[in-house]
Amino acid sequence: MSAGPSLDDIQVAARRIAPFIHRTPVMTCASLDAMAGARLYFKCENLQKTGSFKIRGATNAILQLTPAEAARGVVTQSSGNHAAAVARAAAARGIAAHIVMPRNAPAVKCRAVEGYGGVITFCEPNIESREAACRRLLEETKGVLVHPYNDRRVIAGQGTATLELLEEVPELDVLLVPVSGGGLLGGNAIAATSLRSSMRVIGCEPANADDAYRSLKSGHLEKNESADTIADGLRANLCELTFGILRERVDEIVRVTEEQIVEAMRLVWERMKLVIEPSAAVALAPAVARCIRADGKRVGVLLSGGNADLSALPFR
Amino acid sequence: MSAGPSLDDIQVAARRIAPFIHRTPVMTCASLDAMAGARLYFKCENLQKTGSFKIRGATNAILQLTPAEAARGVVTQSSGNHAAAVARAAAARGIAAHIVMPRNAPAVKCRAVEGYGGVITFCEPNIESREAACRRLLEETKGVLVHPYNDRRVIAGQGTATLELLEEVPELDVLLVPVSGGGLLGGNAIAATSLRSSMRVIGCEPANADDAYRSLKSGHLEKNESADTIADGLRANLCELTFGILRERVDEIVRVTEEQIVEAMRLVWERMKLVIEPSAAVALAPAVARCIRADGKRVGVLLSGGNADLSALPFR
Repeated sequence: MSAGPSLDDIQVAARRIAPFIHRTPVMTCASLDAMAGARLYFKCENLQKTGSFKIRGATNAILQLTPAEAARGVVTQSSGNHAAAVARAAAARGIAAHIVMPRNAPAVKCRAVEGYGGVITFCEPNIESREAACRRLLEETKGVLVHPYNDRRVIAGQGTATLELLEEVPELDVLLVPVSGGGLLGGNAIAATSLRSSMRVIGCEPANADDAYRSLKSGHLEKNESADTIADGLRANLCELTFGILRERVDEIVRVTEEQIVEAMRLVWERMKLVIEPSAAVALAPAVARCIRADGKRVGVLLSGGNADLSALPFR
Repeated sequence: MSAGPSLDDIQVAARRIAPFIHRTPVMTCASLDAMAGARLYFKCENLQKTGSFKIRGATNAILQLTPAEAARGVVTQSSGNHAAAVARAAAARGIAAHIVMPRNAPAVKCRAVEGYGGVITFCEPNIESREAACRRLLEETKGVLVHPYNDRRVIAGQGTATLELLEEVPELDVLLVPVSGGGLLGGNAIAATSLRSSMRVIGCEPANADDAYRSLKSGHLEKNESADTIADGLRANLCELTFGILRERVDEIVRVTEEQIVEAMRLVWERMKLVIEPSAAVALAPAVARCIRADGKRVGVLLSGGNADLSALPFR
């Protein structure tokens, strides 16, 4: 067994964070159903506080800090959405948040962090620079690391999205979740398979950053040498913790092209009138491209976030 | 008294069209409340079937055709949203729809009409060419005109949006509605002031197409000489019918600049993660620009539609 959170951990997390998050709506769209040949249920975490699911895990972690830990504040590294979530969750508890962000993070995400009172330290857009900056901040502040996915409390928090989805649509057959570091996919796979063992859980990943696909195939943790994808939230690599959860709980990882991501994104904007970010479109892309077996099935689609940079849209 | 529909007409319309439309959600947004200094309740007609409120009026009119009228089909003229609505409402009744559209109508709106089975006749983008094409179609097909606003059935249908809004938020103080030909504003002003006499109803209009503002000021029907506004749904002029309703039921018309429209549109996309079209942003613009007296009030904002052309966005 992996050391991931249990269903009980996720259910406790749901009660703990409920006062601090939105219960997001589940939406449907007849024209997208027709394209997918399935009945799609969109869990709209783009409408979540801070514009993504990340507030779930960050809040669950920060509410569990001891008073002494809380007094020293929190530190994290993130390409954007986790950053805003930690900043907001820290502000809700009245504690400091120091955030390491890559220089090329979308402007809208940087503004959000600062709007919540988070203090940004910029680093080069690579994992080494990011981790070095994070280590320095932890030493300087003596704060607590709230890692975006290598943290059982964070993973449990992310899994609460599927608890809500299954309360509204109990008979789901398939669940599509984007995968990056594996916290969202891991937490939701635990919730889904614990509550409904027949459900197929599919991770959705950019082909240009397919470490999860390769890791599950080889049986070892693989890394992305580069991660040249428009899905800026999906460039991270799995860690041992999330890899272990995915091996137990996920049926398959499906890879999608950059063109499929942009097309899925355009469809949600045009047909559903919802702003989603490219990373969220990755969950829909396999359904409309019909590269999963889901004919006539009830399919949950986790729209992970809506923090698209409006000044740099990919539509022609 | 104007010859507009009564509250009873609107209530009957609501029951008639209910099986054919969405009951759209009412959303809120804390950060926009802070900007406006008021509590904003957004009636999300961008999430309505066909992507705008227009399906309400079109359905109410088409369901009232006699069998003999229905057999000859319907004809209309529209810059886009009314066109899609008539096409879809006609398809729902299984009858033909002929639509006159200007050549410069957004591509997304033309695709929508054709997708619903409507037959488009293009005209030059001016009122004379449009009306001439419409007259020819009426003669050729012997069909029934479903005018976008000079029609009591259409006006009654549009007013059903405010019935729903007041069911969810009974104690509204102010209602903000975009104004073009006056069907949406007229119908909703009748519903609002009939159910809650203390409510202030404010029409919101692009300064570059401000015939309603000038008409209410002068006491005579004024026309737009040009209508150079990004709000492509708000270029029409009032007619005698809607002008009469507005004189009785509307407290004031507020004009907004093109910059204020784009800024309000950007705010809804960025903060609410909702795709709205420029015409819908015209209703929010006076609130965030604080050019209405609404401090601390409960303000309804009618987000009229979401059919933005994604390939031609105004954001920098």
